[in-house]
Amino acid sequence: MCVLGLGLIGGSVLRASIAAGRTAWGYNRSAGAVEDARADGYDADTDLEAVLRRAQRSGALIVVAVPVPALDAVLGAVATHAPDCALTDVVSVKRAVLDAVRGHGLGARFVGGHPMAGTSQSGWAAGDVALFRDAVWVVGTDDGVDPVVWGQVAALAVDCGSVVVPAAADEHDAAAARISHLPHLLAEALATVAAAGGDLALGLAAGSFRDGTRVAGTAPELVRAMCEANSGELIVALDEALQLLTDARDALSDSGSTETLVTAGHAARLRYENLDRWEITDVAVGEDGWVERMRDAGRRGGALRARARLASAGTR
Amino acid sequence: MCVLGLGLIGGSVLRASIAAGRTAWGYNRSAGAVEDARADGYDADTDLEAVLRRAQRSGALIVVAVPVPALDAVLGAVATHAPDCALTDVVSVKRAVLDAVRGHGLGARFVGGHPMAGTSQSGWAAGDVALFRDAVWVVGTDDGVDPVVWGQVAALAVDCGSVVVPAAADEHDAAAARISHLPHLLAEALATVAAAGGDLALGLAAGSFRDGTRVAGTAPELVRAMCEANSGELIVALDEALQLLTDARDALSDSGSTETLVTAGHAARLRYENLDRWEITDVAVGEDGWVERMRDAGRRGGALRARARLASAGTR
Repeated sequence: MCVLGLGLIGGSVLRASIAAGRTAWGYNRSAGAVEDARADGYDADTDLEAVLRRAQRSGALIVVAVPVPALDAVLGAVATHAPDCALTDVVSVKRAVLDAVRGHGLGARFVGGHPMAGTSQSGWAAGDVALFRDAVWVVGTDDGVDPVVWGQVAALAVDCGSVVVPAAADEHDAAAARISHLPHLLAEALATVAAAGGDLALGLAAGSFRDGTRVAGTAPELVRAMCEANSGELIVALDEALQLLTDARDALSDSGSTETLVTAGHAARLRYENLDRWEITDVAVGEDGWVERMRDAGRRGGALRARARLASAGTR
Repeated sequence: MCVLGLGLIGGSVLRASIAAGRTAWGYNRSAGAVEDARADGYDADTDLEAVLRRAQRSGALIVVAVPVPALDAVLGAVATHAPDCALTDVVSVKRAVLDAVRGHGLGARFVGGHPMAGTSQSGWAAGDVALFRDAVWVVGTDDGVDPVVWGQVAALAVDCGSVVVPAAADEHDAAAARISHLPHLLAEALATVAAAGGDLALGLAAGSFRDGTRVAGTAPELVRAMCEANSGELIVALDEALQLLTDARDALSDSGSTETLVTAGHAARLRYENLDRWEITDVAVGEDGWVERMRDAGRRGGALRARARLASAGTR
């Protein structure tokens, strides 16, 4: 297994893969991260071509873990030096990655992925072998997906301690806009409005502000990369939030009430807290219609945790 | 000391006051909370008149800890049965309380307060003796405030483990709208938009959503009570947030960039994380001009932690 990019997510994938008993090595552009990874006992290199040739020779699964702006350069190198490898990614948007992968002629052996985990920190040092434990790891389930690669990617997620939720790229992106990208923009706006209140306001800030703005501490370039790569879906979610808040503002001004928004928000939070994640047991990877059936199960809250169900039906 | 209302905040004040060696008893309307408080070894009663007569007899400091909608009834009882007691409150808005107190003729012996602490839970059982430890406790510093009562209220805050930030009612409310009430409305909106994405979206939700919506788990009546009692200031803060988000939406749509909002939000969060709270050492309570000088220090991030500086200059 070969991990391209050793930041928070890629570095954690490398650590978790080794901990799961896999053979894995990594590439990072900056020498500092590679030195740190080596000092921690991991196999890492700044030579992308050498890393990819090794992947091609050994038939490794390649995990792309670079930010969206660096995607094109990395995929170009994969197409040149390791075109036959199975390929996945851990980037926070799926449509943009899928299009880029197809643009480089790498679509046939690609299955996208997105572990729904992170912190507001970044870089190799922020990585954590346990980052993905009990997290959701979306595995791309688009039409025409290769069931063998799909099983390999899902097995990686399970080995890292995650549960697998199958979803198509566009469905993932629409959901991620609501639960990941919108929270970042709201946090940025909240922090900005509070700071406009000066040191008195910031000095009074307690739990609601601290939690509501935590992700505004994330490096701006990372927030921008994920939000801007999902702008179409993010605008849909942002427009819904703007409508709710504008309606609440008008109701507060006209009748002094926040009942509509507060009632809906509380019910939504309770629905989240009580969400029931169930195991998908009735779809075999690779069987007729499995892609559509997996996606449908994912839409209804289904997930896969059992490694035995991840292998393609044709290879068992 | 007499605490009126034994919910999360009032119940925690009672616990922390006893732990600090004070004599304190409480009132609550519902018998259930009173029974629970008694079972935990505290002195509590459902008889408001008896509780207040005891306060009047013993010259106790009365702490009003009921939600805004219950304020009028409780203050009416105070005016009837304990008109000579020093009076404070721990309600999350200060202008509405100040006006209500003055409306009942209780302004001369009143100094408002607001401990900036809480959880999304409520009720006696949610209380915690350590809830106010290292929290900020705003002590109302409006023109004409009685320095002796001010010192008593500040000493209560310090005894509960908090640092005292002096602020006028209107300045408190403007700040609280930005760092407490706006976060609640944004959390409600975020939860609602996510739930509109169905079980797939809610199932993918991780840290950014969980933290960003935590306070949407608060009982809706409590969120409404504090937001609606501060509607004027909240509309100002909400309008600023709407403008920032609308501008971000337009920039994302027009140029694909979120740079302006993300850069500002990140800088604001760093300013919060690096905020320097300094000790006010050059203002003596009760000296000429102390009210304006305390407020000015509070605006610039100053706070009081040393009990020796809280007594009125005239009583030392």
